[in-house]
Amino acid sequence: MPALTSEAIANQFQQLQQFIASKLTEIDGKGNFISDEWVRKEGGGGITMIMEGGAKIIKGGVAFSKVEGPITALMRDQMTMQGATFLATGVSVVMHSRHPMHPTMHMNVRYFETDLGECWFGGGIDLTPIYVDIDHAKAFHRALKETCDSFSSESYTKYKEWADDYFYLPHREETRGVGGIFFDHLKPHDVVERQRIMEFCLGLGRLFPSLYRDQTALSFDTPSEAELRWQALRWSRYVEYNLLFDRGTKFGIISNGRTESILLSMPPNAQWVYNYIPKEGTAEFQTMICLKKEKTWF
Amino acid sequence: MPALTSEAIANQFQQLQQFIASKLTEIDGKGNFISDEWVRKEGGGGITMIMEGGAKIIKGGVAFSKVEGPITALMRDQMTMQGATFLATGVSVVMHSRHPMHPTMHMNVRYFETDLGECWFGGGIDLTPIYVDIDHAKAFHRALKETCDSFSSESYTKYKEWADDYFYLPHREETRGVGGIFFDHLKPHDVVERQRIMEFCLGLGRLFPSLYRDQTALSFDTPSEAELRWQALRWSRYVEYNLLFDRGTKFGIISNGRTESILLSMPPNAQWVYNYIPKEGTAEFQTMICLKKEKTWF
Repeated sequence: MPALTSEAIANQFQQLQQFIASKLTEIDGKGNFISDEWVRKEGGGGITMIMEGGAKIIKGGVAFSKVEGPITALMRDQMTMQGATFLATGVSVVMHSRHPMHPTMHMNVRYFETDLGECWFGGGIDLTPIYVDIDHAKAFHRALKETCDSFSSESYTKYKEWADDYFYLPHREETRGVGGIFFDHLKPHDVVERQRIMEFCLGLGRLFPSLYRDQTALSFDTPSEAELRWQALRWSRYVEYNLLFDRGTKFGIISNGRTESILLSMPPNAQWVYNYIPKEGTAEFQTMICLKKEKTWF
Repeated sequence: MPALTSEAIANQFQQLQQFIASKLTEIDGKGNFISDEWVRKEGGGGITMIMEGGAKIIKGGVAFSKVEGPITALMRDQMTMQGATFLATGVSVVMHSRHPMHPTMHMNVRYFETDLGECWFGGGIDLTPIYVDIDHAKAFHRALKETCDSFSSESYTKYKEWADDYFYLPHREETRGVGGIFFDHLKPHDVVERQRIMEFCLGLGRLFPSLYRDQTALSFDTPSEAELRWQALRWSRYVEYNLLFDRGTKFGIISNGRTESILLSMPPNAQWVYNYIPKEGTAEFQTMICLKKEKTWF
């Protein structure tokens, strides 16, 4: 099928990584990304870019990888992959903000193919505020809807629901944040569609820095101890989600990816307090009310 | 088979919980356990006891549960359980210490049966120091060997190796701590053996408080910032282990257990720093050298 080869897809993803990192460096205004190149023993490798201790970004990573090689029994069982060999390439971004009034934000776009001739795209963006700001959540969803609409008329609704289901902690009965969009196994039927889906993925990636800029545009006073504690409690849920449920983390671990690149998504810190429930009427309580699947934003 | 019914096993486990909590309260000297009883919708329930903010124990839980009901598709697939219904009962203990020179310590004993007439015991104890003290690690293993020897001559060697394999983080190529013992699927062939294995499990449980007392007997100066940071970094590995690999956590989550009781094992806090490697010659570096499978203690 390719007019757009997997090589070209990987190259464009790598350029996307550079674009995102350079925009986020501007937006942060203080921190810099350091860059680590790594090689996977079984085939392929990647470039991991990380900023720690920025002005806005307390810990953030932009990771590119292109890995390939045999499909192992573990991948077959746990990821239901078929065939003898695979190629996977993608860009993952997670930004944890310093101030509790600024959110954690995540984006991923990826492409898979196997030697059976199957190929598919997947991706998603989602917003995890520490304190939900309804206007910010609406603006975030509106921007995603716009990008989705230019891809296809039904995609926002479909991918928004998919995100609600995917970015969900069943054991907590809460969503990871205010959601966003998620899609997987988008299989192009011809060269034109392949190009179109790739453009959609690149569009989402390019949107990320401006979304993060908008979500972190306001300045706030030095946070209180209570606000920082709430941030650490919410980050513990982020940890639970990524280690218990996230498919990318799971794929990375079982495919022998580079651990520090897979776990780039971990927050700088997290706290667990037994059975902590925010008091009714507090900002923390209001946030918990918003972390529901059924929620629509306009 | 029963002379010892599953009811009796559950009752003895519940008494074991009380024994452990009461001994640990004495050892801590300041903190108290609060107790939460819970009911599982599908059948059974448990009692969760937790201490937060003790003198030695910063966060520790002693959990008893007895759950029963249908074996779901998820349990069949992910836990390879067979049959239509199951009963599971056990005691789990995790103690996180306040001072970085005091360790995290874990113990679990459990009993399973299914309607196919199959039944088995499992359990384990392991020690996770923040800073490894070789003498303490030796004393810990010696005490476990003694208890194992009175059960059977080969059990310490076998269960020690099993613990090395089980309490292991493959993605970090490190053990969770200095190990201990682990065993699973011990199937009694007759009434006498059933009683003997149960006694072994109870013996391990009763040993826990004195092991914890010995590991936390020394007093230390107020810890430095660097030591507390190292504690949080090591605790992040504890989180990774429990959420990515621990069978009890996995079983709890997929069997719709009570989340706050399952995640009792989480440390009070954790930190992730990108690609942190302790400098050669430091106490932190020395600790990492000890976190290897092959290590024997006498």
